[in-house]
Amino acid sequence: MTPDASAVLADWRARIESDLDHVLSDTFASTRLADAMRHAVQAGGKRIRPLLVHATVHAVGGDGDHARQAAVAVELLHTYSLVHDDLPAMDDDALRRGQPTVHVAFDEATAILAGDALQTLAFEILAHGNVPADVCVKQLRELAHASGIDGMCGGQMLDLEATGTADVLSLDALERLHALKTGALLRAAVRMGALAGNADDAQRAALDRYADALGLAFQIRDDLLDIEGDSATLGKTAGKDVEQAKSTFPALLGIEASRQRLAQLAITMDDALVGFDQRADPLRAIARQVIERDR
Amino acid sequence: MTPDASAVLADWRARIESDLDHVLSDTFASTRLADAMRHAVQAGGKRIRPLLVHATVHAVGGDGDHARQAAVAVELLHTYSLVHDDLPAMDDDALRRGQPTVHVAFDEATAILAGDALQTLAFEILAHGNVPADVCVKQLRELAHASGIDGMCGGQMLDLEATGTADVLSLDALERLHALKTGALLRAAVRMGALAGNADDAQRAALDRYADALGLAFQIRDDLLDIEGDSATLGKTAGKDVEQAKSTFPALLGIEASRQRLAQLAITMDDALVGFDQRADPLRAIARQVIERDR
Repeated sequence: MTPDASAVLADWRARIESDLDHVLSDTFASTRLADAMRHAVQAGGKRIRPLLVHATVHAVGGDGDHARQAAVAVELLHTYSLVHDDLPAMDDDALRRGQPTVHVAFDEATAILAGDALQTLAFEILAHGNVPADVCVKQLRELAHASGIDGMCGGQMLDLEATGTADVLSLDALERLHALKTGALLRAAVRMGALAGNADDAQRAALDRYADALGLAFQIRDDLLDIEGDSATLGKTAGKDVEQAKSTFPALLGIEASRQRLAQLAITMDDALVGFDQRADPLRAIARQVIERDR
Repeated sequence: MTPDASAVLADWRARIESDLDHVLSDTFASTRLADAMRHAVQAGGKRIRPLLVHATVHAVGGDGDHARQAAVAVELLHTYSLVHDDLPAMDDDALRRGQPTVHVAFDEATAILAGDALQTLAFEILAHGNVPADVCVKQLRELAHASGIDGMCGGQMLDLEATGTADVLSLDALERLHALKTGALLRAAVRMGALAGNADDAQRAALDRYADALGLAFQIRDDLLDIEGDSATLGKTAGKDVEQAKSTFPALLGIEASRQRLAQLAITMDDALVGFDQRADPLRAIARQVIERDR
């Protein structure tokens, strides 16, 4: 990472945290519900999706302020999905980012409602974006499509259907599952940034290639970390995939081939960004972070 | 109800059913998730919220086609809330409109995801509305605000917090709870219609008064039905409020005073619509249906 990209990412991250705090700083009808939403949002995390929005707007020379609502919206959307995925009826996780999950810290009903209200808030914030209305509507379409039945929710359902069965997924089916479950929202982050920054068609196509490779790399790294990482660094339970006999990239390809696939995806991302100048360095830095991360 | 209003409402209802069928007729990534969403949406119901969108657009002389996406969106949003409210961790209902609830017909994880994806689909459909982009963005703000922490979700949380405690709510607190839990979405339906039909400021203010009275009337009638209705007609378990010692209007006001309050609200709605011609007859008919309904 160039020193510049690193400093720029740190600045955006501070802005993202401040913007996230701000949208939940009001007084709301139910204090308990607001507390549960804050618990989920303020548990931290890498903020990769909102950073992607900022980095994409920057890469195409757009106004940084135009990234802010879309950045907050995609992180709220992601956070809601974590709250619901952790529920007892879903993945049944007690720990997330080293903190008790929402249904543990509060209760199950509150966690369901907090997730619901975080999803709603994502769309509300995006609908208040400081971009022209036609751009705002296109961003809303991207976020909704990426999150719903043919995106994140559909992918999570496929994952639940595949977990615990004796069937092993094909590599194609596994890639499709993760393109929906994880990839779609990462891609939507990039696309909302491209819309906010008025990217041209060639730039959009290149950014889509970058985003698709990033989504797949993200999941392969996640699968490798479940095997190689330790729970303390991860902030969640390691070894859970093997225990649940989940289809993963290391299980299907082997560990070494999964690492090689990651290295290929790094090259794909570099290639996709070859037409961009140093303004795309933060996108390049995010790619390296995703490939090299240890949590 | 004038014969005209009755026929017009029947036409809109057929269009609403057809539009709802249409948005769930595609092939989706997960057949199971799509089936669960269809199960929830096609269980029927009174379709009051989408009818309100159509009736409001009609009342202000707008183009009926401009009501369609907002009508579908508000019904999908309402349906998601029913799916989640019925979950074991929430109201724990096995029956809804005489059918097994989604978590009973499928399972709990599927019901959580189906509700999530129905909410997302509501915003996706609305973002594809055939109204100008600036109107579309305003509709999205209305729907999101009415559904979230300071609307439906907030109201449901207050309701859960109040249920099962020894505390009896004050009449003000009960009205506030229901203004959020039920009223906000009914009001959003009317407001999205007013936006789609380009209502002027005076019309909007009058329609807000109508919608607020309708929301309160809806809840008082609901509370009375829980006491007076039978489970077979209601399609859900009667007598549940008393069993759970819930604060209700009949419990706070008495049955006779609750009926008188309903009659006053009928007058308030008539008064609110006094400046509208016969194009508001469907809105007047919906008001009577809400006051007189037996399920």
